[in-house]
Amino acid sequence: MPQYKYVLEEKDLPTQWYNVLADMKTPPPHYLHPGTLEEMLDPPIPPPVFPMALIEQEFSQERWIEIPDEVQDVLKMWRPSPLYRAARWEKALDTPAKIYYKWEGVSPPGSHKPNTAVAQCYYAKEEGLEGFATETGAGQWGSALCFATRLFDLKCKVFMVTISYHQKPYRRIAMETWGGNVVPSPSSETKAGRDILAVDPETTGSLGIAISEALEYAVTHDGWKYSIGSVVNFVLMHQTVIGMEARKQMEMAGDYPDIIIGCAGGGSNASGLIYPFLKDKLDGTKPDLRAMYVESTACPSMTKGIYAYDWGDTAKTGPVVMMHTVGHDFIPAPVHAGGLRYHGMASTICRLLEDGIVEARAYHQVEVFDAAMSFAQAEGFIVAPETAHAVKAVYDEALACKESGESKVILWNNSGHGVFDLGAYDAYHRKELTDYKLDTAAIEKALAELPKVPA
Amino acid sequence: MPQYKYVLEEKDLPTQWYNVLADMKTPPPHYLHPGTLEEMLDPPIPPPVFPMALIEQEFSQERWIEIPDEVQDVLKMWRPSPLYRAARWEKALDTPAKIYYKWEGVSPPGSHKPNTAVAQCYYAKEEGLEGFATETGAGQWGSALCFATRLFDLKCKVFMVTISYHQKPYRRIAMETWGGNVVPSPSSETKAGRDILAVDPETTGSLGIAISEALEYAVTHDGWKYSIGSVVNFVLMHQTVIGMEARKQMEMAGDYPDIIIGCAGGGSNASGLIYPFLKDKLDGTKPDLRAMYVESTACPSMTKGIYAYDWGDTAKTGPVVMMHTVGHDFIPAPVHAGGLRYHGMASTICRLLEDGIVEARAYHQVEVFDAAMSFAQAEGFIVAPETAHAVKAVYDEALACKESGESKVILWNNSGHGVFDLGAYDAYHRKELTDYKLDTAAIEKALAELPKVPA
Repeated sequence: MPQYKYVLEEKDLPTQWYNVLADMKTPPPHYLHPGTLEEMLDPPIPPPVFPMALIEQEFSQERWIEIPDEVQDVLKMWRPSPLYRAARWEKALDTPAKIYYKWEGVSPPGSHKPNTAVAQCYYAKEEGLEGFATETGAGQWGSALCFATRLFDLKCKVFMVTISYHQKPYRRIAMETWGGNVVPSPSSETKAGRDILAVDPETTGSLGIAISEALEYAVTHDGWKYSIGSVVNFVLMHQTVIGMEARKQMEMAGDYPDIIIGCAGGGSNASGLIYPFLKDKLDGTKPDLRAMYVESTACPSMTKGIYAYDWGDTAKTGPVVMMHTVGHDFIPAPVHAGGLRYHGMASTICRLLEDGIVEARAYHQVEVFDAAMSFAQAEGFIVAPETAHAVKAVYDEALACKESGESKVILWNNSGHGVFDLGAYDAYHRKELTDYKLDTAAIEKALAELPKVPA
Repeated sequence: MPQYKYVLEEKDLPTQWYNVLADMKTPPPHYLHPGTLEEMLDPPIPPPVFPMALIEQEFSQERWIEIPDEVQDVLKMWRPSPLYRAARWEKALDTPAKIYYKWEGVSPPGSHKPNTAVAQCYYAKEEGLEGFATETGAGQWGSALCFATRLFDLKCKVFMVTISYHQKPYRRIAMETWGGNVVPSPSSETKAGRDILAVDPETTGSLGIAISEALEYAVTHDGWKYSIGSVVNFVLMHQTVIGMEARKQMEMAGDYPDIIIGCAGGGSNASGLIYPFLKDKLDGTKPDLRAMYVESTACPSMTKGIYAYDWGDTAKTGPVVMMHTVGHDFIPAPVHAGGLRYHGMASTICRLLEDGIVEARAYHQVEVFDAAMSFAQAEGFIVAPETAHAVKAVYDEALACKESGESKVILWNNSGHGVFDLGAYDAYHRKELTDYKLDTAAIEKALAELPKVPA
């Protein structure tokens, strides 16, 4: 057997984040104001829901941004994360491909999410804030933020989609263990929540409503701001520690990837791994590097959506962004990969997609769990349903190598464990997991509601 | 902040297990036959429920036993595990103590248990076996064995205590994901199970019954043997990879422990860390080294039991062992630390205890969760309820250092994560967690049922 793991010491932790905007020949268009639809050229963008330092990062064109010592110090609690060679899985698939993965499940909350949660909390503390409000679906992001706020002695208010609050109590308990205050959304604590409850007291909630509640909570409480777990530039940039580490580790392994793969809801874990390598493609060093974003067929923004301006949030509170979208009003089918149910995608990814620099693919959930089972039985780790979408793409690429006899090097991001998501595996074992037919009429209807931006 | 983690490369994985029996001046007395109560001096001990290589290891007096290459190769999937400096917790406790812990939660099943499961499966495969039967309570051991049997292409039959089967479905699903066949115990698949169900169809089961079913299943199925997760010599020895690695990592940190602490049900995770260091005390190099085993007040074999011969299992099928016991018939209170509810303790630990070479302590569960919460909020990791007992002992020792002003070096084994046990944390948050008064009359009654061994 070859070496399994490539480990780095704490001293090898990256000291700078990589900002892909500095290397994109065609950058994404500017954000538009959510109300006036006018271009927002500079910080601060209204409404000022984020700490100012993060808004500045959002607009930065600097290639490298220093990671503050205090942030590095917290990241060292679990970083650098290991890079694995999936040698047993290669053998099980009988493929000549060499499969490597970065394992982000080693963080205390069990995913890549704390990479940005920690950075956001640092800047919030620097700004003298009291706390962060946020929303969470299945709870991966909420638990990362509760973990991070605790370490910086900040408060955390989490609006958790009601159906998940009751179906995934363990995530809620983890958040409470780190000191978070978690309420089912819609809640009676915000006007947005009360309005919904007045109409439908039995509603199971949605991520869109939870975002509206978190934003309202942040702007109506002194010393509170809003924290976000994906989609925006600064979040993707905070995740580039993954790819920066992976570059060193692939060097240790003596390989360079032919294909890099990540699952994408808003796009942060995938870009965190991909962008530091994509730099080599953008500067012409590695013109043949393939980078693949994998989404759910339940919410196929990249593969079935259109490239257009849309609101980033259902409540139309945040900026209007040029991106691939299935429409901010589209409600995806209730797939287990809750993190892949976002209607849009990070603007840099979409621009790179339009320019043919990166590629996208979508999968149904049953085939995704087939692949995750194959991985779990060979490598031991049970991955999150979101991550399983990346696993399926790797599976297909590895089998394509078997067919062609090529020994490609495949690198993917194992963004988080599925210990909180075993209910989905149970449904799979019992053959109760189903695929959903995409409601294309619903997408067409949602796309009709896009902002009418003057040319 | 000081360095947090001390990581080793795969090439630093120990190549030998350490057998403490070789260095004990007064070894534990021989096992007795469960029926005749006669001394069993040599392998094979009847009944031959284990693979022969393991029975030989059980009686070995060799100090070092080679770890087969195939076992090392699987251990490298997650080993060497990291050694952490709990710098943030030290700060939170305001203690001059230096706290280090070995983090075993990085294995795919999330605990130290696969260290022995993998070794046992290797020998079973070498012997041409078809599968292993075992019992599991909360499921930590069962999931480790399912993970390991899968990797060696063996079958696994797990008798899971009925109440846990229903209360902890996620562990059951994890076992099934690795291909295990899990049934609630008592089941209709064994005579032992059917007999119990005939009397009480609504029983919630017990570990004793589950052991009886697993043993019966193993001896009544050709090609099947029984696998055990703690207590016996060979299991403790397989766990010494933990301490062997920790020795190297403490050297990297430039420290040597004053106190080593582990939680103890059967004693394997604690001894896995302790024995490789205790060697220095046994040979006189480190006479002042303190080694502490921490148990639950619900099942206080070391602190309230007697040192006597007792059956290792409720069904009186296995050997009679000289150990600290509260009696094989004693039913402990239903504390969340299910792994600490064993009536006895590993025989080497008990002998060392009798000789004053190691020490023991017991804690109630509420104070244990107080300490685990303190740890989780400082260090992020949410530990298993069993492990939390070690955390409480470290907590007390660290505060004693604060009192005395001593900067002692404390090393403990963080044997597994508590992600599957968040229900216990929820009860704690809601102040529904209670302590149990020890039923000393029940212990006295159980101790009256000890075997009458002729002098």
